[in-house]
Amino acid sequence: MSLIVQKFGGTSVGSVARIEQVADKVAAFRASGHDIVVVVSAMSGETNRLIGMAHEITEHPLPRELDVLVSTGEQVTTALLAMALEKRGLSARSYTGSQVRILTDSAHTKARIREIDNQRMHADLARGSVVVVAGFQGVDEHGNITTLGRGGSDTTAVALAAALKADECQIYTDVDGVYTTDPRVVDGARRLDRITFEEMLEMASMGSRVLQIRAVEFAGKYHVPLRVLHSFKDGPGTLITLEEDESMETPTIAGIAFNRDEAKLTVRGVPDTPGAAYRILGPIGEANIEVDVIVQNVAGDNTTDFTFTVARNDLAEAEAVLREVVATMDSAEVRSDSRIAKVSVVGVGMRSHAGVASQMFAALAEVGINIQMITTSEIKISVIIEEKYMELAVRALHSSFGLDGEPRDEHAA
Amino acid sequence: MSLIVQKFGGTSVGSVARIEQVADKVAAFRASGHDIVVVVSAMSGETNRLIGMAHEITEHPLPRELDVLVSTGEQVTTALLAMALEKRGLSARSYTGSQVRILTDSAHTKARIREIDNQRMHADLARGSVVVVAGFQGVDEHGNITTLGRGGSDTTAVALAAALKADECQIYTDVDGVYTTDPRVVDGARRLDRITFEEMLEMASMGSRVLQIRAVEFAGKYHVPLRVLHSFKDGPGTLITLEEDESMETPTIAGIAFNRDEAKLTVRGVPDTPGAAYRILGPIGEANIEVDVIVQNVAGDNTTDFTFTVARNDLAEAEAVLREVVATMDSAEVRSDSRIAKVSVVGVGMRSHAGVASQMFAALAEVGINIQMITTSEIKISVIIEEKYMELAVRALHSSFGLDGEPRDEHAA
Repeated sequence: MSLIVQKFGGTSVGSVARIEQVADKVAAFRASGHDIVVVVSAMSGETNRLIGMAHEITEHPLPRELDVLVSTGEQVTTALLAMALEKRGLSARSYTGSQVRILTDSAHTKARIREIDNQRMHADLARGSVVVVAGFQGVDEHGNITTLGRGGSDTTAVALAAALKADECQIYTDVDGVYTTDPRVVDGARRLDRITFEEMLEMASMGSRVLQIRAVEFAGKYHVPLRVLHSFKDGPGTLITLEEDESMETPTIAGIAFNRDEAKLTVRGVPDTPGAAYRILGPIGEANIEVDVIVQNVAGDNTTDFTFTVARNDLAEAEAVLREVVATMDSAEVRSDSRIAKVSVVGVGMRSHAGVASQMFAALAEVGINIQMITTSEIKISVIIEEKYMELAVRALHSSFGLDGEPRDEHAA
Repeated sequence: MSLIVQKFGGTSVGSVARIEQVADKVAAFRASGHDIVVVVSAMSGETNRLIGMAHEITEHPLPRELDVLVSTGEQVTTALLAMALEKRGLSARSYTGSQVRILTDSAHTKARIREIDNQRMHADLARGSVVVVAGFQGVDEHGNITTLGRGGSDTTAVALAAALKADECQIYTDVDGVYTTDPRVVDGARRLDRITFEEMLEMASMGSRVLQIRAVEFAGKYHVPLRVLHSFKDGPGTLITLEEDESMETPTIAGIAFNRDEAKLTVRGVPDTPGAAYRILGPIGEANIEVDVIVQNVAGDNTTDFTFTVARNDLAEAEAVLREVVATMDSAEVRSDSRIAKVSVVGVGMRSHAGVASQMFAALAEVGINIQMITTSEIKISVIIEEKYMELAVRALHSSFGLDGEPRDEHAA
């Protein structure tokens, strides 16, 4: 018997009928002897309905009151799910974030969890009750209702699992796991049985559709085994773990990530002197523009080319900022390109296996794709290429690294 | 400058537009220098929507979870009203029942208030904030969300006024005050500027359309001046006070109450022995049937007639209970009549003024109405008459006691 935290998102609890289905699922787990804590989101559409009313009143609602308003959404779901569980003969108790209590800082609408009291939950579990907790919300030290920022209910679930030292945190969603790449791009994309936290983070461009990155970071930090599963289909999902899977025979690549929402900016003829990079990126940061890939190459004639990527819809602003910067530099000029895509090969295996980079470049060359930029981390190699070749690159790499076909570690479900 | 608690019911906050109107009203009061605590109900329709979802799941939802569910309704209104107040340049803070905190017993869906912490509210008021509190809800000593039984948000408002020692508790509703009788029955019915708590309670059949009786009792017990006003029309409303108005020249009758929802049961030939009344009413009480008027007359031949009234929809059950009782009594028989109405003359003035009863009976005789039963209290005289004469009786009494015309105490508004 183990303690499992299960999280169901807004679509999974989007109607009374779906809440009943969730109750069936929870009841089945309970019947097999597990202790269960369920975290729920607001019924889909409800949060928007509430925010809509706030916006009828004012364009900029008070963050404190927005939290009071929006937090009712999850509260409604907890009560309905507890009723549905009792109807199935289970004992169940609902809790708001305040009641648990999930103590956060006072940053309304984007609060961060500080501490979770696990006493009430442990007492209920000991009595055989299923505990149902409202996701996405907490309470600050003054008793004000807060809501969590990005990551919302996923973060609540992971934090509860950490506080309760749960055996597993299960995130139910509308996909049946994490894939080697986007199945809409590559037919042979397949569900991973396991992926490490680091890989999951590097796969962000895939993974963010499945799990909030903040929740993954949180789970990694507190060693909470995280599993992504489909709300209404059976299946083992994908387990996100701390450890590399030692049983893997060919520990190379977890998946191929990609992103076409970036644009590239190059400053040519930058004086090759200390502080040049800062003179370029300092004003970009001050303008609150986030930078992703940065590449600088040593040049020959006392100047260098400095290239970085930003989100595509920040391009115009970044370019304007850069033109001002460049005006102070002798002979420097700015070029931009929004028709690019980033394609990455991700896998903890590449740490100890040479040759991943060369295999990647060979696979791209074979299909005639020119690489504009290269950047590497310990477990990821990314290239920037012309946008129109993105799907071709992803398919070529997926095939080259042997990702098509059977899961790399089909464990018993 | 005084401290005023204002309560707005579901219809008054039934849409975002109406919440904005309420905010205008509150802002105007605040502008004239008053400290304001506002108590709000759920937006009209919202409570039924929530309960509807619960009933989709189960016919008998857990009371604890029903409270968690339903209490979100008022919480939504508090947040929206606080936003609307801030939009008008006021400082405002919303609170749930738990946050205030309004401590209740643990009787879910019909909890009773035990204690109210006024510290947070006083601190906010001292900072110049308008405090917005969710009506109808509280928290028990274990931190569970509770909702109050009958009386709901009115009771919350009165209890807060008592805890804060407010100068006045204003209940905003869809009528502009308490009337001498129902304006739908008597054209000349007029709004009372004042009425005492006792009169208000005795006028229950009128008053219950305006104020929850439990709130009136509460206000009387804690000496909270209560005022009934129209949500969206200007006017002084009706002040419900502890004291009789000493300035009144002719302190006689506050109003004419009536009720046609009762039915009459008579047991004839009851043995005139100790315990007979208990033998009849004991089983009625055990069947949870509430009894209103009870009249027993001394008879001549060792038997007596025992008559009482019950709510009309309890008649069939009460009659069945009585037939069993009567089967054990020699020569007793049961008669019932549902075509009756109760008409009452109410006024604290009658305590010290003789002649009210005779004036009442004379007025009824003059229009040819036969009186079936008479019962009196210190400030009320009620008669049971044939139902079809009810309106006639009310009009005759309203006129006879000089209630048509100008308010008896038109104070400056």
